[in-house]
Amino acid sequence: MNDFEFFGNIKNAENFIDRIKDKNFLFSFVISYTETSEIPGITFAGADKDSIKYTPPADAEYLYYGNCKTIDKIPMTPDGKPTPALLTKTALESSSIPHIVINAGSKIAPQLPFIQTGLSPGKNISVSPALTSSEVSQAVNYGRIVGRTLASLTDCLIIGESIPGGTTTALAVLKAFGYKAKVSSSIPNNPVILKNQIASMALEGLDSDNPYDIIAKVGDPMIPFVTGMLSSASEINPVMLAGGTQMTAVLAFASKIGFNEKNTAIGTTCYISDDKSANFKNLVSEIADIPAISVNPHLENSSFPGLRAFSEGFAKEGVGAGGSMIASMLKTKNDSSKFLELAEKEYHRIFTSL
Amino acid sequence: MNDFEFFGNIKNAENFIDRIKDKNFLFSFVISYTETSEIPGITFAGADKDSIKYTPPADAEYLYYGNCKTIDKIPMTPDGKPTPALLTKTALESSSIPHIVINAGSKIAPQLPFIQTGLSPGKNISVSPALTSSEVSQAVNYGRIVGRTLASLTDCLIIGESIPGGTTTALAVLKAFGYKAKVSSSIPNNPVILKNQIASMALEGLDSDNPYDIIAKVGDPMIPFVTGMLSSASEINPVMLAGGTQMTAVLAFASKIGFNEKNTAIGTTCYISDDKSANFKNLVSEIADIPAISVNPHLENSSFPGLRAFSEGFAKEGVGAGGSMIASMLKTKNDSSKFLELAEKEYHRIFTSL
Repeated sequence: MNDFEFFGNIKNAENFIDRIKDKNFLFSFVISYTETSEIPGITFAGADKDSIKYTPPADAEYLYYGNCKTIDKIPMTPDGKPTPALLTKTALESSSIPHIVINAGSKIAPQLPFIQTGLSPGKNISVSPALTSSEVSQAVNYGRIVGRTLASLTDCLIIGESIPGGTTTALAVLKAFGYKAKVSSSIPNNPVILKNQIASMALEGLDSDNPYDIIAKVGDPMIPFVTGMLSSASEINPVMLAGGTQMTAVLAFASKIGFNEKNTAIGTTCYISDDKSANFKNLVSEIADIPAISVNPHLENSSFPGLRAFSEGFAKEGVGAGGSMIASMLKTKNDSSKFLELAEKEYHRIFTSL
Repeated sequence: MNDFEFFGNIKNAENFIDRIKDKNFLFSFVISYTETSEIPGITFAGADKDSIKYTPPADAEYLYYGNCKTIDKIPMTPDGKPTPALLTKTALESSSIPHIVINAGSKIAPQLPFIQTGLSPGKNISVSPALTSSEVSQAVNYGRIVGRTLASLTDCLIIGESIPGGTTTALAVLKAFGYKAKVSSSIPNNPVILKNQIASMALEGLDSDNPYDIIAKVGDPMIPFVTGMLSSASEINPVMLAGGTQMTAVLAFASKIGFNEKNTAIGTTCYISDDKSANFKNLVSEIADIPAISVNPHLENSSFPGLRAFSEGFAKEGVGAGGSMIASMLKTKNDSSKFLELAEKEYHRIFTSL
C-alpha cells in the first residue's frame, strides 16, 4: 500500500481498495486498432512502422504463452525496450489472476482463443470519420454484453487495452467533450504538437455534440467498446479501468451514457500520474467523481536498463500494467521490491530465450 | 432432487451434487459444424436442409437476446417443434447462471460476442477425414486454454454443445474406440441404419489406434475441443458435461488423453437416459468411472404440444438443456413443476412474439 498513491475521490479510493483487496480479480485485455497509428511519428509501439499492427495481438499472445506467435519476438520499441505487457504478465502470473483477451477491432487476430466482437479497425481520424454510427452502437452494445458476462464471473473486473495511436484519438475525444486535455505518450519526448494537430484536423467539421457522433468522428473502436463494458459491469461489481490517457476518454464517454461511479476506479502507473507533459490527475477529477490509484513499482531500482526505461518515460503504461500490478499486490501482499524481483526474473527469461 | 436419476458411479453422483449445489455455475455453449449433417436424413435440427448450418449460431443468439439474428425465427424442426435451447434459456434465466458462447468450427458466426477459436468446420466423414492432425491438436490445445480460464472463473463449469449431425460423428468415434454404441437422435424414428452406414464408411481405411488419428478421421471439431476443455477445467473445479451421445464421445477421447474423473459428471435429460434405441447409461459406465445425472422435467404435463414433444422423443436434449436444468434446479430449489411453469411462459412468449 506504501507503493500506491490515491487521487480523484481519495476517500472512495481507500474504500474501493478495502472492498476488493481479498477478492477475486479477472483481467480483461481489449485489443484494437486505429489507422491513426500509421501517421509517421505518432507512436513507437512497435519495432518499426510495419510491425505496429502486430503489437496488440502479440501482447495478447505473450500474456498467454510467454512468447509470441504472430511475430518472432515480444513487442518492443525500435531500440529494444520491452512492452509493458512484461509488467502485466508478471503481475497476473504471480497472483494467479485469470485473464481473457477481447478483440475489439484489432487489425490482426491473435493466435489464441479470444472474445470476438466483429468490430472493424478505426479509420485515420485526420482524414476520415473514425467509425460509422452503427459501428459505435454495436461497440457499445457488444461491450455491454461482454461487461455483464465478465463482471458476473468475478468480484472485480480489470479492463486493460492495447491500441497503438490511442492517445491521439483519446486526445481528440477529450477535446471534443470540452476538456483541456494533455495526454501522455509512449516516449519521453511526447509528440504533443503533432498529436494536437491531428486532433484539430479530426475535430474540423464536427457539427454535433451528441456523444455517439463525437466518438464516430474522432474516436476509435476501443473507446465505445470499453465504455459499454464499464457501463454494464459497474452495475454488478467493482471495475478497475487499467490505463492512462485512453481510460480518461472512456470515462468521458461513459459519463455521457451512464455508469455506476461507486463501482469504478482508475488504476495506473506513477509514470502516467507523474507525467509533467500531461494532466492526468486533474483530468480524472474533472471528468468523474471516482477514485484513482497509481502504483510506483520503483523500476528505477532495476539492474536491467530495459526495466529502468519505464521510469525514464518510455511506455509508461499499457496492456493494463498499472491496474494489474495494483490487483496483484493487493492479492499477494507483495510490495514493489518483491514485484521488481519477479519482473526482473521475467525480463531475464525473455531476453535469454530470444 | 426427486426429479433426478443417478447412474454411472452413483455414490459419486450424490457427492458431486453436494459439492456444487450452493455454488456458482457458468454455462459454456460450444457451437460447431460437421458437413456430415448435409447427408440427407441424418438430422432434423433445422426447418429445412439449408437452415441446418444456422441452427447453432441461432441457438446462441436466442440464449442471449431471446430472439435470433441470423434467422428470423428460433430454430425448430420442419413441423415447428422448438429448439431445446428453450429449456436451456429458461433454466439459465430463472437461476441467473451466466453463459458464454464458444465458436469451435461453426459454419456461421453468431451475431454476438463469442469466444473465437479459429477452428474450421469438420468434413463429411463418409467421404473424407473429418479434420487434419494439426486441427485436432489445435482444437485440444485451444480447448485446454479456454477450459482453464473458464474453470477459474466459476465453481462449476457446465459445457453444452450444438453440432447438427453430431450424433453420427459421435457414433463413429465410439465405434472406433471399441464401444458397442447405440446413439440417440433428435427424432423418434432414429435413423439408426443410416447412421451406422455412415459410421462404417468413415471407419473404412482407419489404420491407426492413436486417439488423435481416430478423431481426425471420424470425429468433428467439437469433440477434441470440448475434450481439451474438460481436460484442463477438471483439474481446477467440477465440470458437468451437459449432453447425451456426443458427450460420451468426448468422454471416450478424454479417457485416452487424461482428465480428472473426480471432478467430472455428465448431466442430461431423462429423454436420453431412457431412450430405448440407445444405450447411454451403459456407455457412460463402460467409458469412465464418473457419475451421471439425468433430470425429468415432466414435459408430458405441458399444455403446449411443442413442449410435450420433447417427452415424445423429439430433440430429447441439446444446447446443454439437461445439465443446465440440473444446475438451475440446484441453485433455485425449483422442482420440475415450477420449471415447467417457467418453460411454458417462455414458450408462450416465443410463439406470440413471432
